[in-house]
Formats: sequence, structure tokens, C-alpha cells
Amino acid sequence: MADTYALIMAGGSGTRFWPASRRARPKQLLSLGGTAPLLLQTVERVAPLCGRERVLISVGKHLVAATRAVVPGLELLVEPVGRNTAPCIAWGAAAVARRDPAAVVMALPSDHVTRDDAGFRATAALAVEAARSGVIATIGIQPTHPETGYGYIEASGDGPVRTVTRFVEKPDRERAEKFVASGRFYWNAGMFFFRAGDMVMEISRHLPELVPFMRAVTAGADAATIDAMFPSLPAVSIDTGVMEKVARMAVVPGDFGWSDLGSWQAVSELAAVDTRGNAAPASAVLVDSERCYVDDRRTGESKRTIALVGVKDLVVVATDDGILVVPRSEAQRVREVVEQLDDELT
Amino acid sequence: MADTYALIMAGGSGTRFWPASRRARPKQLLSLGGTAPLLLQTVERVAPLCGRERVLISVGKHLVAATRAVVPGLELLVEPVGRNTAPCIAWGAAAVARRDPAAVVMALPSDHVTRDDAGFRATAALAVEAARSGVIATIGIQPTHPETGYGYIEASGDGPVRTVTRFVEKPDRERAEKFVASGRFYWNAGMFFFRAGDMVMEISRHLPELVPFMRAVTAGADAATIDAMFPSLPAVSIDTGVMEKVARMAVVPGDFGWSDLGSWQAVSELAAVDTRGNAAPASAVLVDSERCYVDDRRTGESKRTIALVGVKDLVVVATDDGILVVPRSEAQRVREVVEQLDDELT
Repeated sequence: MADTYALIMAGGSGTRFWPASRRARPKQLLSLGGTAPLLLQTVERVAPLCGRERVLISVGKHLVAATRAVVPGLELLVEPVGRNTAPCIAWGAAAVARRDPAAVVMALPSDHVTRDDAGFRATAALAVEAARSGVIATIGIQPTHPETGYGYIEASGDGPVRTVTRFVEKPDRERAEKFVASGRFYWNAGMFFFRAGDMVMEISRHLPELVPFMRAVTAGADAATIDAMFPSLPAVSIDTGVMEKVARMAVVPGDFGWSDLGSWQAVSELAAVDTRGNAAPASAVLVDSERCYVDDRRTGESKRTIALVGVKDLVVVATDDGILVVPRSEAQRVREVVEQLDDELT
Repeated sequence: MADTYALIMAGGSGTRFWPASRRARPKQLLSLGGTAPLLLQTVERVAPLCGRERVLISVGKHLVAATRAVVPGLELLVEPVGRNTAPCIAWGAAAVARRDPAAVVMALPSDHVTRDDAGFRATAALAVEAARSGVIATIGIQPTHPETGYGYIEASGDGPVRTVTRFVEKPDRERAEKFVASGRFYWNAGMFFFRAGDMVMEISRHLPELVPFMRAVTAGADAATIDAMFPSLPAVSIDTGVMEKVARMAVVPGDFGWSDLGSWQAVSELAAVDTRGNAAPASAVLVDSERCYVDDRRTGESKRTIALVGVKDLVVVATDDGILVVPRSEAQRVREVVEQLDDELT
């Protein structure tokens, strides 16, 4: 049977986790919702499915050193510039197809968490099986609430592997409520499973601008060639560029405590809390405070105390050069801070 | 005419300004409500009344170096241990009496501010005149609200110099309201004016335990003698030990924007604010926040950003090793933090 590969997309550079996240230290390189960096958590989660030696990491040039430090020894696909997910997956699919067009690729975000890793692997194994039969598959996350921040996947059929009826972009509240009530909709977690050759074909059909690039990759192009071609590729997401146009796709419903950790609020919700709902390091002092999330990310050995007195529902995050104070419910507004910062601190 | 001296009492070691204040860096050595340390503000405020060379600073042994750094060249009375204000004033009065018993001493706290320094000096000059005539005088601060955190002085008579009827310890709310409504009560700011010889006499009468110590001082005792005697002196405040028992005292009402800066809230009320009521350094980023006080007291040149998003009425103070987040109205609870801290950080 053909091998299985993982393509972990680690090119992101978010601003939602300032002051912990910076251009040179994006979300996937941070330890969030666990003690290891999210990228390493992702590698450990999928490696049992494909073998560590078949894990490819797609990464931006400026993050190569930081990424190697987190996941040493893994194969990196180094993008000279970011071009969204379609060129990224085109590269991964073509690179695997060069070795074996029948090999299955699991294309996965690098910055999500799952509470139940074994549950994730059981679901992913079903998606890999579906892909091996020649269909492009995705995982649909069982929704827990009418979230308006995610895309949805409508499914038809029964059983563990269903048919995708359509992809829906982030809905408004009312639609989201209908989706969840219907029982037919799942969250789109951006995880895709396919035979390498099948994806090269689908991309060739729907995004023909990527064909010369994929040909170069399958012909064994060197880094200089990639660097020369990549900047001219269209910045398109695989969702809108390909997946929404694929004639027949499979979706495997899954329920394994997934979170895309969209903000400090999401992180705070995963943290272990004390009897007053606070999550804070042992060095913090909380006086009469409730449901607060305190995160001290200073470097070095020097002691520091973060003290909260008489506050509720606050997120307080501090690094060596940044301190953030925001109500949990407004944590997604951190990007408004980053917009106002000097380059030096972003 | 005999000289005038200032005795500035800088032995305090408060915990109300954590994380800025520490045992080795108490309130009077901090820049609060202005750009200079409070002690230096106090010296500059009184020096025009007495001459800088007649300013004595009473200070604890562990603060000598830090105090000299703030007010170099001034005469220090170094207490080996803290014994409250009566032994402190006994030392100052005896030290000045050794030079000239008719000299007037202004005994003043080191950690208060006044918005109108000239107004303070005009009031103090009246108190000095009263003292020169042989009465012990104090300044009564015109109350602006029924504060329960201060002691009150009841006055009788009219004109700029009145007679003290009684001292009243911190009253409850109801009494404080009556005091303010009566128009006869003033806040006790702990400022006393007296001829050196008069105070030695009053202390001898009301606190005879201090007589041998004052005799040693007037005899020119050296530091070793002081260090040997001081620890056995009673720790008594000049208010309860002497002032409340003095037969006849004068009070000069004053209204010069005085504040004892009792907490970060008091400091925040003095700070210049923007149109949304925020006071913050230029390096801070405030998004949709109101009436917040942000104080970044890091040392060194490294940049740091304190960002507040969507919060109201918060005090945020950060040093190199401490971060405090507290609602303005609860700022006096900072002492509850200090009680929980490791020695290293207090």
C-alpha cells in the first residue's frame, strides 16, 4: 500500500496573540493550550499516522531557523513569500507525487489543538482511507455552538464517511443557528486528505496558473527555481480555489475537542482553572479576582510577579517587552493594538 | 531673628505603591504626582523658607544611600530603627536646640504633594510666625470632601491663625460629613511648627522617656551613642504622644492643593488625562479604554508597550519585576498583594 504523508502548513503569521506572537514568533511556534509549541503538538499528533520521516512542513523563509528549532530534522518546504494555501498545497502535492502519485497526503493547519489526539487520529484514518479510494476528503468538526467565525460544510448521507453537499463561508448568527440545528453542518477545520496525483489533477483543472510550478516541482526543481517562480503564483486559498469546485468530496465527521485557538479567549477557555475560575502561573498573586487568565512569558530566570486585585474576566499577558490587558470577551481586538505598534514591537 | 529649620521625616516604608515601592525604594523616593521624587519635591518646596543648608532629613539606616542619591549634601539624622514620629521629632528638636533653642523647626512629612507650592509657603510662613511667638502650630487643610482616611483638627476663632480645640482620629463617614459641614474642621496633614526649645520642653513633659535621649543629642552625642539609645525609645506618634496633650496650639488653615497620595488612585487623580480620561505614557497603546492610569517604570532603555483594550477605570503599573492591575477604586488594596509576596519582591 502506498505511503501516507503529512503536509503541515506553518506559514502563518498572525497578530492575534500579541504580545506573545510576533512576526518572528507566530502562533504556531508558541506554546498555547499545552506545554509544547503548537507546531510540535501537531507533528506529534499526526506522526503516528504517517511516520515522522514523511512529515513535510511548509514554512516562510524568515521562519526557517525558528521552525527548525521547534521540529528539528523534518523536511521543510520553504516559501520565499506567502501565497495562501493553494500554492502551498500544490507544492506539497507535487512533491509527494514526484515520489508516488498514489501516496495519500494529509494537509493540515499547524496551529490548532485537539483535546483528544487519539480521536483525531481515528477520524483522520477514515479520511485517509477515503482518499486512498480516489476521493478528496475533509474532516467536519461537530459544532458545539453557532459559531460565526468558522466556515461550515454541509454533508449528506449517513455513516462515518459522508458526501459534501457544499462549503459555506462564515455565516451570520441566524444562519449559523440554523446550520447547527439542522444536524447536517460541520465546521470546516481546513484539513484535507487526498492522493497526491488526484490533487495535482484537481489543481490543474481549477487553478491552471499553478501547472508550470507543479511541473517544475515534479521535475525536481532546486530551491533557486522555486524561489524564482513562487512570488508570481496567485495568492488563493485552497478552499475557494479548489475545494469548493471539486465535483465530489467526502467529509468525515469528527468530535475530538478541536479548537483553532482563535484568540486569547479561546486559550483561556482551555486552561486549567482554580476554584474562582482563574488560570495563572504560581508566581502570580490574585486577590479577590475571578475568571482571569494570566500568562507570564518573560524570558530568562528573573522573577516577576503579576498581581491582580478585584478584577473579573480579564486576560493579562506579559512578555519582556509587552503587556496586554483586555477583557476575555474582547480578546479578538488585540489586532487593533498591533496596528498601532511600532514595527519593532510587532 | 533666629533661624528657621526644616525637619523632613523620610523614614517611611509603605507598601501602597507596589510594584513601584519596595523596602529599599519607599514612597518618598518615588516620582509621583510630578517628575521628581517626593522627597526632593518636598525639599524644593520648603527650602525657600529656611535655606537648603538648614534642611534636616530624618531617615532609616537602610535608606541612607538611596536618600543621599536623591538629595545630596543635606544633613541626615539616621535612625538605626524606626520608632514612629515622636522620637524622630525629639531628635530634630534637640539637634536644633543645641544650635539655637529659639530657632523654629518645621516638621514635615516627606511624601506629600501640593499643587500650589507658593500657597503652601504662604501658609507655612504664618505657622512659622506663630511658632516664633512661642506657640506650637500646625497647618489645617481645608477639607474638600468627608474623607474617612485622615485625622481632623477642630479650630476656633477667626483669621489666618486659629486655636486648636481638639484633634480627632480618623472618623467614620457620618462624623466626617458633620465635620465638613460644620466649617470648623480641617484635615491633619502632620505638619508641625515650633521653637526647638519649646518642643524639647513639651516632649519632656508628655514623653519623659525621651529626656535622656534628647539630653544626649543636645550634648552632641556621636552616631554610636545614638545607635545605642535609639532602639529602646518608645515607638509613639507625635500626634498622640504630644500634640493632643499640648495645652494651647495654633492652626493655620490652608488650601493649596494638598494630597498625601495615599494610593495609586490618588496619584491617578493628579495625573494629566486625555479626552477619554486616560493617563498613560506615550509608549502605551489604549484601544477603547477610559479613565485608566498606566504607569511604566521599567529601568533601562529597552522598549516596552503596555496595551489596554476595552477596559475602564483600571490602574496598571509595571516595573521590571512586577505588574499590577487593579480598579482605581480598589487601589488601596495593594497592601493585600504585598502581604502575599516573597520577601525578594517586597
